[in-house]
Amino acid sequence: MTAALTTAQLTQEHRPTLDQALEAIRTRAYWSPHPEHPKAYGGESEGGRRSLSVAEGQAAFEALRGKRFELDQPGTDGWAGSEVSPFGAEMGMEYPHPDIEVLLPAMRAGMPAWRDAGPETRALVCLEILARIGARSHEFAQAVMHTSGQAYMMAFQAGGPHAQDHGLEAVAYAFAEQTRTPGAADWSKPQGKRDPLRLRKTFTAVPRGIALLIGCNTFPTWNGYPGLFASLATGNPVLVKPHPQAVLPLALTVQVAREVLKEAGFSPDLVALAAERPDEGIAKVLAVRPEIRVIDYTGSTAFGDWLETHARQAQVFTEKAGVNTVVIDSTDDYRGMLANLAFSLSLYSGQMCTTPQNLLIPRDGITTDAGPKTYDEVVADLAAAVDGLLGDDARAAALLGAIVGPRVQERLEAAPGLGAVALASRSVAHPEFPDATVRTPLMVKADGARKFWEGADADAPYLSECFGPVSFAVAVDSTEDAVALLRRTTRDKGAMTVGAYTTSPEAERLIEEACLEECAQLSLNLTGGVYVNQTAAFSDFHGSGGNPSANATLCDGAFVAGRFRMIEVRRPAE
Amino acid sequence: MTAALTTAQLTQEHRPTLDQALEAIRTRAYWSPHPEHPKAYGGESEGGRRSLSVAEGQAAFEALRGKRFELDQPGTDGWAGSEVSPFGAEMGMEYPHPDIEVLLPAMRAGMPAWRDAGPETRALVCLEILARIGARSHEFAQAVMHTSGQAYMMAFQAGGPHAQDHGLEAVAYAFAEQTRTPGAADWSKPQGKRDPLRLRKTFTAVPRGIALLIGCNTFPTWNGYPGLFASLATGNPVLVKPHPQAVLPLALTVQVAREVLKEAGFSPDLVALAAERPDEGIAKVLAVRPEIRVIDYTGSTAFGDWLETHARQAQVFTEKAGVNTVVIDSTDDYRGMLANLAFSLSLYSGQMCTTPQNLLIPRDGITTDAGPKTYDEVVADLAAAVDGLLGDDARAAALLGAIVGPRVQERLEAAPGLGAVALASRSVAHPEFPDATVRTPLMVKADGARKFWEGADADAPYLSECFGPVSFAVAVDSTEDAVALLRRTTRDKGAMTVGAYTTSPEAERLIEEACLEECAQLSLNLTGGVYVNQTAAFSDFHGSGGNPSANATLCDGAFVAGRFRMIEVRRPAE
Repeated sequence: MTAALTTAQLTQEHRPTLDQALEAIRTRAYWSPHPEHPKAYGGESEGGRRSLSVAEGQAAFEALRGKRFELDQPGTDGWAGSEVSPFGAEMGMEYPHPDIEVLLPAMRAGMPAWRDAGPETRALVCLEILARIGARSHEFAQAVMHTSGQAYMMAFQAGGPHAQDHGLEAVAYAFAEQTRTPGAADWSKPQGKRDPLRLRKTFTAVPRGIALLIGCNTFPTWNGYPGLFASLATGNPVLVKPHPQAVLPLALTVQVAREVLKEAGFSPDLVALAAERPDEGIAKVLAVRPEIRVIDYTGSTAFGDWLETHARQAQVFTEKAGVNTVVIDSTDDYRGMLANLAFSLSLYSGQMCTTPQNLLIPRDGITTDAGPKTYDEVVADLAAAVDGLLGDDARAAALLGAIVGPRVQERLEAAPGLGAVALASRSVAHPEFPDATVRTPLMVKADGARKFWEGADADAPYLSECFGPVSFAVAVDSTEDAVALLRRTTRDKGAMTVGAYTTSPEAERLIEEACLEECAQLSLNLTGGVYVNQTAAFSDFHGSGGNPSANATLCDGAFVAGRFRMIEVRRPAE
Repeated sequence: MTAALTTAQLTQEHRPTLDQALEAIRTRAYWSPHPEHPKAYGGESEGGRRSLSVAEGQAAFEALRGKRFELDQPGTDGWAGSEVSPFGAEMGMEYPHPDIEVLLPAMRAGMPAWRDAGPETRALVCLEILARIGARSHEFAQAVMHTSGQAYMMAFQAGGPHAQDHGLEAVAYAFAEQTRTPGAADWSKPQGKRDPLRLRKTFTAVPRGIALLIGCNTFPTWNGYPGLFASLATGNPVLVKPHPQAVLPLALTVQVAREVLKEAGFSPDLVALAAERPDEGIAKVLAVRPEIRVIDYTGSTAFGDWLETHARQAQVFTEKAGVNTVVIDSTDDYRGMLANLAFSLSLYSGQMCTTPQNLLIPRDGITTDAGPKTYDEVVADLAAAVDGLLGDDARAAALLGAIVGPRVQERLEAAPGLGAVALASRSVAHPEFPDATVRTPLMVKADGARKFWEGADADAPYLSECFGPVSFAVAVDSTEDAVALLRRTTRDKGAMTVGAYTTSPEAERLIEEACLEECAQLSLNLTGGVYVNQTAAFSDFHGSGGNPSANATLCDGAFVAGRFRMIEVRRPAE
């Protein structure tokens, strides 16, 4: 039997990390306590924590396949599981299916003690959960890979240390927010010659109620951890409803959280899993339950809008679809620009909410350090850069990963109907998983004359999100038009990211002003090893929460402040 | 012509105050820069600012009566005004009625420069606005008195320095929230033996859009300033839509804000007034305009719920109706308790969102320092305490103020139909304003047996808000039942305040736990000069935002964090 976790142990191990995280969100300099190099794992760390090596992670994953995933949750009325790896293999796990009439009250029962533990203990318990997840990063990598279709390296980094960074960032924000009000205060109001009025006031951060995390297929941990840890750290139990095709990474997370909560003396039912049967639509049922007071969601705009409209009893945080734009005005590093964009378009087959979709290029061409380039030349050179990057099948597969599901594949196959194909998509044979669907990105040429996108009834294909490895090389009449089109799609459809390449101070000013006014995060002139589709915890904001692609950013004060309330009790001072 | 305000002047005068406010919201100790003694005003302060005396304030108010209130706003298509003082006199002011198709674009035009000014300059400009309002506190007192019906002293204190405190508190929270992210950061990510990845990141707090303040009749400045200043300090223009019967206090506010903004070099149109014609219902039109992105509202639950449901394009902050409870279990200061409650029930004729309504008293009586008291004795003694407090007409009028409007009077007149009257309401002759409707509070006895309030179809009159000078002395079967009833009304109808009197640690624990779980602010054993219906800026939270009476508290991080977004621009480091 594992020894119980004491507050002293937790403080000694995790308080310094919490303090560093608090400092990092203040300075927004680079920081991470979670190594992203795969070889940093395996064996024992300085602190004495054992972590799994690549091979151990794979063995742990294999041991889970084809079995029931036991969580010992109250209110289990059967088992559900239908995951199929995008790399071809059946997963075969079954997960507890909840009887919510039993599970929700059990989750609520743990709330008072968790509330009374206070912000610091809650943060430290969350950090212990993250540390144990971190030690199993290679096991999580397998789980993320075989549910999302991400290639191993990306599944490991984005699904492991980067997701843990984002969880920790949310814990830091939650701790800072809850502790900006002191636990108690003595209030003494002067009354001239009379005695002052004196009160003793206590302030307690109280949870809203049960939080519901609705997970997504492509980034179950990266997109799930901010909401999960923000809610838990602010005192709310968390019910995790994973995407039916991406259960394992979050089931493992729930398992670790329950284990740590129990060892720390709290109810393990503060975190529970709600797996669903095919086509059950359990999220819609859970989302409007009165016990559910916080919802975090990543997915389609349609369901995100439904949640915002109907789950009025809850604080709803959504990340939805958007149309990400890159404005190409000019550059002093043409090769660097092409290489950077080729990588951004290829990474995980463009199945990221942050992947560029619309590349806006002046019809008359651009100026570059390699001389003037026509629109056609830019498009051809970018296509060639993608082809070059993905010329070798093994390397291509390691970058592209697998197509996550049939809908993305259908969109990709329909894309040639949207315009002239500037870059065709080809199938890549995966060296290890022959059944995986691996496809290179496709680029379509499109006319960006104003008549195609101005006005309420404009219906150019690039005005909507086409999620997956499809991008549009849009020939615009000028950089001013590019900025106007950027404004239009950002205002109407939202954007998680905007990129731009320019050497012109005037164009830069125009683009920056558009992003400030339309609330979009901007990356300028990226030509090296940072890509527009990547955001770093503690420093970057993922989305802005100010355009239709998301109503929240990961992570800021607004993301945590509404998850709890501060309750005051005032008494005459003794 | 007034000299332009420079940043240096603003910094010298107001930065120390801002710093003290930031410290106060951290410690929550007593603090206020706005004197609440009427005699502190008149003549010149140490800083050289002239303030109006009582007589000067009255003269300034009289000079406004019967005239057009010029604001020099763009888009004025006529004049509107229908205020009648609850103290009897016609006001006769007319205010600009907006052509919103002209006014809204003019307000938006001022946004970029106001955004670019940054959080500190915005805060300092807000503090200058508050300081000029403060110097005219006696003029505002007249305006608040003759619109709300508050007696002069309360109109002066609550409508003047206390409202200014709450505005300043919101500015402090807004400043703190916007500056927790630095303006810029250098990010350098190690890459082993290769050069680090380096980015320069800038972060700009950007406004949501135009904020709409929907004012209330009873506390136009106190309830209006938090939202107004929180929105303005976070970069949003603010359109002020006052209650048609309480325009003047907010029109004066808009006038001062426009004057200061202009002197500081910004567009005066960042703050504008939207007066309406009788029964025009302009709030409903404005609330769903796409330009409106933030709404602050105080008023009925029906319209508050309508706003939350329909104004989906905006961040909506509402304070609505509630049922405030006092649990009377036992006391060691019976006379102090009676005096304190009598004052709370009488102040401003109970027309406060924080006035107690349900007094829950065990049917079998309570223990006190004056011996055991039966339910009937407690009720009779409390009635006598109110009678004693209000025995003298002049003193009564100074405490009660006037009934704000016919609806409150109708409810008061209907109240004897709700149960046996334990304390009858009487008319008080106002020594100065013979036409004022001044009424003492009424208390009805009610049966608090569980059968009257348990179950979904229970309809005891005390289960709903009866806004105005009506309270219920509810005979409950036990303190446990009192707590259960408190939970029921708080959960279903909300509560801005909860009070309790007890000497029993067990009862105290029960009550406190109920307030923590139902998210209500609790005042325990108040027997002196602090009253359950009063909250002090910088220290107390007004409402919790966690029960149906309000979706926000005044003031915390959540109240300001959603009013702006943080936009990042990242570039390769040079």
